[in-house]
Amino acid sequence: MGELSINQYTIVADLFSLMLAATGVAAVFFFLQRGEVLQRYRMGITLLGLTCMVSSYSYYRLYTSWTDAFHVVNGASGSSGAMFNEGGRFVDWLLTVPLLLVAFLSTMDLGSRQMRLRSTVLAVLAAEMILLGYPGQLATTVEARVLWWIVAMLPALILVYQLFVGLNPAIKAEPLAARKLFRVARLLIVSSWTIYPAAALLSIFGFAGPTTFTAIQVGYAAADALAKVACGVVLLRAAAQKSEPVEEIVPLAGTLRVGMS
Amino acid sequence: MGELSINQYTIVADLFSLMLAATGVAAVFFFLQRGEVLQRYRMGITLLGLTCMVSSYSYYRLYTSWTDAFHVVNGASGSSGAMFNEGGRFVDWLLTVPLLLVAFLSTMDLGSRQMRLRSTVLAVLAAEMILLGYPGQLATTVEARVLWWIVAMLPALILVYQLFVGLNPAIKAEPLAARKLFRVARLLIVSSWTIYPAAALLSIFGFAGPTTFTAIQVGYAAADALAKVACGVVLLRAAAQKSEPVEEIVPLAGTLRVGMS
Repeated sequence: MGELSINQYTIVADLFSLMLAATGVAAVFFFLQRGEVLQRYRMGITLLGLTCMVSSYSYYRLYTSWTDAFHVVNGASGSSGAMFNEGGRFVDWLLTVPLLLVAFLSTMDLGSRQMRLRSTVLAVLAAEMILLGYPGQLATTVEARVLWWIVAMLPALILVYQLFVGLNPAIKAEPLAARKLFRVARLLIVSSWTIYPAAALLSIFGFAGPTTFTAIQVGYAAADALAKVACGVVLLRAAAQKSEPVEEIVPLAGTLRVGMS
Repeated sequence: MGELSINQYTIVADLFSLMLAATGVAAVFFFLQRGEVLQRYRMGITLLGLTCMVSSYSYYRLYTSWTDAFHVVNGASGSSGAMFNEGGRFVDWLLTVPLLLVAFLSTMDLGSRQMRLRSTVLAVLAAEMILLGYPGQLATTVEARVLWWIVAMLPALILVYQLFVGLNPAIKAEPLAARKLFRVARLLIVSSWTIYPAAALLSIFGFAGPTTFTAIQVGYAAADALAKVACGVVLLRAAAQKSEPVEEIVPLAGTLRVGMS
C-alpha cells in the first residue's frame, strides 16, 4: 500500500477504534432492548446484537494488527515489518452477513417453514459469496483476483435477486408500517455490499497507493455502520412497532332492540 | 510441521480468529435465548452456552500461541522460536465434551434418576476418552502414539455405543418433532468426533507437512462448528419446540340436545 503519511496512519487507526466502539455499544443496545419486543421477535434482535459483537471483535483485531504493523517514531511513520492482516474482515463477513440476513427474516412474520427455507437459502448464498471472495484477497496475481472476483459475484447476484424479488411477497404480507421499514433495511444491507466488489476492483486495477487504501478503509467502515448499526436500528423499530398493542376498533355491538311484546 | 507459506500462516490465524468469534457469539446467543424455553430445559441451554464459552477461550489461546510462534516479517514467514502449544485443544475437549453430552440429556425429558445415571456414564466415558488421548499428543515415538490411540479408542467406542444404542429408548419416548432433532444432534456430535482419531492417525503415519497441518486445523474447526454451534442450535430448537404451548384440540362438547317434552 506504499508509505502512508502520519495523518493517513492516524485516520485509519482512529477509524478502526471508532468502529470497535460504535459496533460494541450497538451490540449492548440490542441485547438490552430485546426484552421490549414480543417474544417471537426476540431471537432476531439477539442476532442483531451478535452481528455487532462480531464486528466489534473484528475491528479490535484490525486495530491491533494495524498498530503492530506500523509505527510512528519521532514524528516519522513507517512499517514495522509485521504484516497488516486484513483477513479479519473476511472473518467478520463470513459470520455477520448470514447473521444479519437471518436477523432480518426473524423480525418478519414468516411461518416456521418459510423461515427455515428462506434463512437456509440466504445464509448459504451469503457464506458462499464471502468464502469465494477470500482466495481473491490472498491471491498475488491479477488473473487470480479477477477469477475469484467473478466467481464470488455469482452467489452475490443470486442473493440480491432473492432479496429484491424473492422476498417481495413476504414483505407485502407485513403490516403497512413495518413494510416500509423492511424495504429501508433491505436497501441498507444491499447498498453496503457494493463497497466490497468496488474495493476489490480498485485493487485489481492496480490502485494501491496510500490514499486509495485510506479511502477504502473509510468506505468499509461506512458500509459496516450502515449494514450493521443503522439497519439493525431499523429492524428493531419494525419489531417494536409490531409489538405495540393493537388499537382495537370495537365495533358497535349492534343496536339494542327492545322488543315490545 | 515444516515451513508454512504466508498464506497458510494467514489462513490458520484467520481460522482461529473466526472460531474464537463464532463460538463466543454462540455462547451469548444461548445465554440470551435460554429464557425463551420452559424452566426445565434452561439448565441444558446454559450448558450449551458454557460449551461455546470454553471453546471461544481455547481458540483465544490457540490464536495467541499461533501468532507468538510465527512471525511474518518483511513479507517472509518464519518461526519465532516459541512453541505452538496445541494442548489448548485438550483443555477444550476435556470440558466441552462432557458439558455438551450433559446439555444433550438436559434438553430431553428423562426422569431425574435416569438423568443422573446417564449423565454420569456419558461424562465419565468422555473424560476418559480425552484424558487417554492427551499422552498420545505429547508422545514423541510412533509406538507410544499408537498405544495411546488404541487405549483412547476403547472408551470412545463404548461412548458411541451408549449414544446410538443405549440412548435409543429415551429418544423414542420424546415427542415426535423433538425426536428427529435429537437424532440430528447426536449425529452432529458423533460425526464431529471422527476428525480427532483421523488427525491422530495422520500424525502416526507421518503426514506432517504444512499442508496436512493446515488441513487438520480446518477439520478441527469444522468439527467444533458442527458439534458446538450447529448441534447447540438443534438442541435449542428441540427445547423451544417442546416449550410451545400445546394447541389444544377442544373436542366438541357433545351436541346440545334440546328435548321436546
